[in-house]
Amino acid sequence: MEGLAIMTSGGDAAGMNPAVKCCVDYSRTKGFKPFLIRDGLRGLIDNDISEATKEDVSGIMHRGGTVLRSSREPRFYELENRQKAYDNLKALGITKLIVIGGDGSFGALNQFYADFQIPFAGIPATIDNDIPGTDYCLGVDTALNVIRESVDSIRDTANSFSRAFVIETMGRHCGYLAMVSALASGAEMCLVPEIEYDFESMGKRFRKDIADGRNYIIAIVAEGTNMADYTTRWIKDSLGMDARLTTLGHVQRGGSPTVRDRVMAYHFSVAAVDSLLAGQTKEIMTFKGGTYGTQPIDVVVNSKPVTDQSIVKLCKCLSV
Amino acid sequence: MEGLAIMTSGGDAAGMNPAVKCCVDYSRTKGFKPFLIRDGLRGLIDNDISEATKEDVSGIMHRGGTVLRSSREPRFYELENRQKAYDNLKALGITKLIVIGGDGSFGALNQFYADFQIPFAGIPATIDNDIPGTDYCLGVDTALNVIRESVDSIRDTANSFSRAFVIETMGRHCGYLAMVSALASGAEMCLVPEIEYDFESMGKRFRKDIADGRNYIIAIVAEGTNMADYTTRWIKDSLGMDARLTTLGHVQRGGSPTVRDRVMAYHFSVAAVDSLLAGQTKEIMTFKGGTYGTQPIDVVVNSKPVTDQSIVKLCKCLSV
Amino acid sequence: MEGLAIMTSGGDAAGMNPAVKCCVDYSRTKGFKPFLIRDGLRGLIDNDISEATKEDVSGIMHRGGTVLRSSREPRFYELENRQKAYDNLKALGITKLIVIGGDGSFGALNQFYADFQIPFAGIPATIDNDIPGTDYCLGVDTALNVIRESVDSIRDTANSFSRAFVIETMGRHCGYLAMVSALASGAEMCLVPEIEYDFESMGKRFRKDIADGRNYIIAIVAEGTNMADYTTRWIKDSLGMDARLTTLGHVQRGGSPTVRDRVMAYHFSVAAVDSLLAGQTKEIMTFKGGTYGTQPIDVVVNSKPVTDQSIVKLCKCLSV
Amino acid sequence: MEGLAIMTSGGDAAGMNPAVKCCVDYSRTKGFKPFLIRDGLRGLIDNDISEATKEDVSGIMHRGGTVLRSSREPRFYELENRQKAYDNLKALGITKLIVIGGDGSFGALNQFYADFQIPFAGIPATIDNDIPGTDYCLGVDTALNVIRESVDSIRDTANSFSRAFVIETMGRHCGYLAMVSALASGAEMCLVPEIEYDFESMGKRFRKDIADGRNYIIAIVAEGTNMADYTTRWIKDSLGMDARLTTLGHVQRGGSPTVRDRVMAYHFSVAAVDSLLAGQTKEIMTFKGGTYGTQPIDVVVNSKPVTDQSIVKLCKCLSV
Repeated sequence: MEGLAIMTSGGDAAGMNPAVKCCVDYSRTKGFKPFLIRDGLRGLIDNDISEATKEDVSGIMHRGGTVLRSSREPRFYELENRQKAYDNLKALGITKLIVIGGDGSFGALNQFYADFQIPFAGIPATIDNDIPGTDYCLGVDTALNVIRESVDSIRDTANSFSRAFVIETMGRHCGYLAMVSALASGAEMCLVPEIEYDFESMGKRFRKDIADGRNYIIAIVAEGTNMADYTTRWIKDSLGMDARLTTLGHVQRGGSPTVRDRVMAYHFSVAAVDSLLAGQTKEIMTFKGGTYGTQPIDVVVNSKPVTDQSIVKLCKCLSV
Repeated sequence: MEGLAIMTSGGDAAGMNPAVKCCVDYSRTKGFKPFLIRDGLRGLIDNDISEATKEDVSGIMHRGGTVLRSSREPRFYELENRQKAYDNLKALGITKLIVIGGDGSFGALNQFYADFQIPFAGIPATIDNDIPGTDYCLGVDTALNVIRESVDSIRDTANSFSRAFVIETMGRHCGYLAMVSALASGAEMCLVPEIEYDFESMGKRFRKDIADGRNYIIAIVAEGTNMADYTTRWIKDSLGMDARLTTLGHVQRGGSPTVRDRVMAYHFSVAAVDSLLAGQTKEIMTFKGGTYGTQPIDVVVNSKPVTDQSIVKLCKCLSV
Repeated sequence: MEGLAIMTSGGDAAGMNPAVKCCVDYSRTKGFKPFLIRDGLRGLIDNDISEATKEDVSGIMHRGGTVLRSSREPRFYELENRQKAYDNLKALGITKLIVIGGDGSFGALNQFYADFQIPFAGIPATIDNDIPGTDYCLGVDTALNVIRESVDSIRDTANSFSRAFVIETMGRHCGYLAMVSALASGAEMCLVPEIEYDFESMGKRFRKDIADGRNYIIAIVAEGTNMADYTTRWIKDSLGMDARLTTLGHVQRGGSPTVRDRVMAYHFSVAAVDSLLAGQTKEIMTFKGGTYGTQPIDVVVNSKPVTDQSIVKLCKCLSV
Repeated sequence: MEGLAIMTSGGDAAGMNPAVKCCVDYSRTKGFKPFLIRDGLRGLIDNDISEATKEDVSGIMHRGGTVLRSSREPRFYELENRQKAYDNLKALGITKLIVIGGDGSFGALNQFYADFQIPFAGIPATIDNDIPGTDYCLGVDTALNVIRESVDSIRDTANSFSRAFVIETMGRHCGYLAMVSALASGAEMCLVPEIEYDFESMGKRFRKDIADGRNYIIAIVAEGTNMADYTTRWIKDSLGMDARLTTLGHVQRGGSPTVRDRVMAYHFSVAAVDSLLAGQTKEIMTFKGGTYGTQPIDVVVNSKPVTDQSIVKLCKCLSV
């Protein structure tokens, strides 16, 4: 039986555990012998690899984070360490890899393929939702619902006390989390890298609203704009409303995966195993226009992420 | 200004409140004067209709159920009551309707259009997810996540005590909720109207699993099969495992809408107002292949709902 | 080092896992060598006992159910099996026991003490909250909050649709869960074994309320009354309001322990280890009048549980 | 009928809404005519006071924050504004007040009593849990459970990625929230104003743990210590572990009240109305040693809050 190893790599995201479980279960039904690599690239280099047991993947479906753990591992940039990794796989009879992570991890495996021709399949998993060519990455729906609960909570207190709240969301250079959260929570203001913002015009809008009786403001600010502190001060100084900043931080990464993240994990896992079965060598799974598919890693590497334009359009009125 | 009235009708579903809010806000930006009808068709007949105020739709985004309330109203089958409804609208200057509900409600508005030519737009909202022509109806994602939390909870206790649990889910004749819940929770058994089940073969499968150490079973049974009681007894009698039945009931309808239901509500509402603006007269909103669109009510009326075949395929192994 | 073994027994309850972890950690700081018994009395008889490792109790604080698993084990009634249990403990150097469970489990350990003089400490854990001499048992707060979320959800839908909901709660012969849930959710009706109910007078009350505009009813019914079906029919037939029954079932047992259950677990565990250290031989932990203490098992065995009278008093108006 | 007015004042806390509802309902059964004051002291001065209707308190039991809204109102320090407040009450026939809030609000009402002899009853409500003479203030249990969910989430991601997380909790000068959260989440470090901390000894402890395999640290730091930033840097610099700071902020104030906060609200409200009925003039409700009671405002004003010493004792090992 051919060995197939599964790893999680890069920043953790909800949905990684269901994907690990589905990859193990489905690959086994297709005749593979599934292995698990611990700690991402570190375990690949240091041979922290073992055959997947029933216990390894039992009761993990509903757990946040990744039971395989993850790492950022600069040693993989060096050929001698990649050689070690290859030797580890060879010794265990592993001929194929599935990596659950982001574009950095996919790039590393691409280099590894160039060196040693180990085919791999990539499952996109990052709460930033910034991988080119797919509308969806694992972890996004869970992160959005964690943010929603926080913002709903804060709205209770904002409304009780006539106060503005600025909430900084994750997402690196991508404003997706911030924009969808702003829509879903009915925020009055949203600042993201994708949209030009105009404080002067916002000042006019809010001063009018306040004159009409508005007594609180919820502002969602993407970390990629680096504007959270400024916005908080601006509300105080320019609008004369008491304002507080909440930085949700890593709370956004955690939590039990939502149904959507579990179901996406299922579909991506089936597609990843099928891609390797079909002899594809370096494909990344995609969900595009409602359909699951694959795209070559080169497309991912050579493209820029494009944020969903229908969401951008709906949010424009929140930045002016 | 042209009056546009919004109502919720039929069984309630999470996401109705965000849809009401978005329809009011967006229609106003497009030059309509929005009205709200209370209690669905009952309010339409009895003139329980008022212009939407800011307070009506403030702070409702995160609330379950429908603040407009709903009803099943057989009086609407009688022409004289539809005449009353028409007179009410005319007196208030309302020339267009948006109805948020299921196929029964759409059919009623279709008859009303045939009688009095009041154009309407329908937003699909039912946890059964059984409206032809759309992959998604409001309320489904929230219902799925409510079920997920219950099943995750029950799994804790099943695992602690070596016991089978049969969980009956809603969905009328459609097994969608049951199937997705079974996938998302890693259930061992799933019975739905769409898939033939074979207790003899399941008996073999489970007896082998039990011999291999399995000490609990989670079975998800759609109410449409009417098999929940039988399955519970069968597990006790035929597998010799203690088994308990949980009927989740209306818990599934409630809860604060998930982000997905809020975002879908946003898109459907924009599409509904745009459809009326464009002069369409009796369209139902759709989400199909990842794209928002509309379809004529006649298609809905003359088609049968088709459950997502990719989900059916993944679940077949849970019924044999 | 003296061996001390920890087990969970009887019906599972949230808070058992934090208690297991605290007993292991705290007993170790006091010089014991902690052991874990799997599957309750079954593991005690069958020698499913091992020294507690760091991994055993790592990451279990927030998990529902019991990772040690539980059982009802009639074999323990037979002396020869208790002899086996004793031999197992002796061989491992275990001289003391902590049992986390209900009165049935405490009684079994009491018999075991009579036979072989193995001192034990009992930590009350049952969602029924029916152990004499303590105001609180582990699992109750978590169960109450699970019920609360369900009832809050159902209220959304009840209010949307002019309908009564009857919700049956667990608790065996004790109405505590039902009563506190009724208060916490503002239910209109509550039937428990502790309070005489009067349907005639309730009929008058509700008919007046309905005439005054009431359009839904939430009724909480304790399983110990066996009145859930009757109440549902009565509301339909006698009040003429559509009514639905939800049986929450084992959902109530599960879920991540609340802070209260975790903190109570902490205090009970410290008290249990301290009780054994002090040379006490068969004490049950208590929380009474805001203070942690212990009581002899004989008091538990010879008393009847008394439901909190201040709660009973507040609920009387919901049964007439 | 004698008028009794209810207000919420100071920082908002979960449980205020159930308390408002219970005060209205229970005072009515005792023959009072209940009034509601909006925006705390501001509404008292500006006559934003109206008789409580059924709609005012319907469906508020499960809502976070306070539907009456709150404020900090320095104008109340001036006698002329207190005179206005008195005139408002007199004109409406209001002879008694219930204030739900913290010690600042109680002090204001005490001054008002000295001026105009309007008896009042105070219900302690603050997530800081720092009101002398009572073990419990409304909002604490909800805040603790919000923090618990966040910390459980963060632990998933900490464990996945070998990283330390510093979580700053609210509580002003009181470390109660931080300490209970640290116990409930099994944190490895906890810094509060009540306990002297020793970084040198913590350094030794953690270096040993890390050598033994520990790969993440959860540190809970009370805002009253002002040590969150320092701790984050210290972990990076002194322990060489990547560390992130999460400031939970006002998320902690919000959320649907837990069962404990709802039940406490019930008891406090009954006690407050009973206190006024019994002719007491300036009592604050208490929960002490498991019993509900009252204490004169002078005791609150002249005492310092004492944090629960059993909790302090359990947490000492987390600061060294």
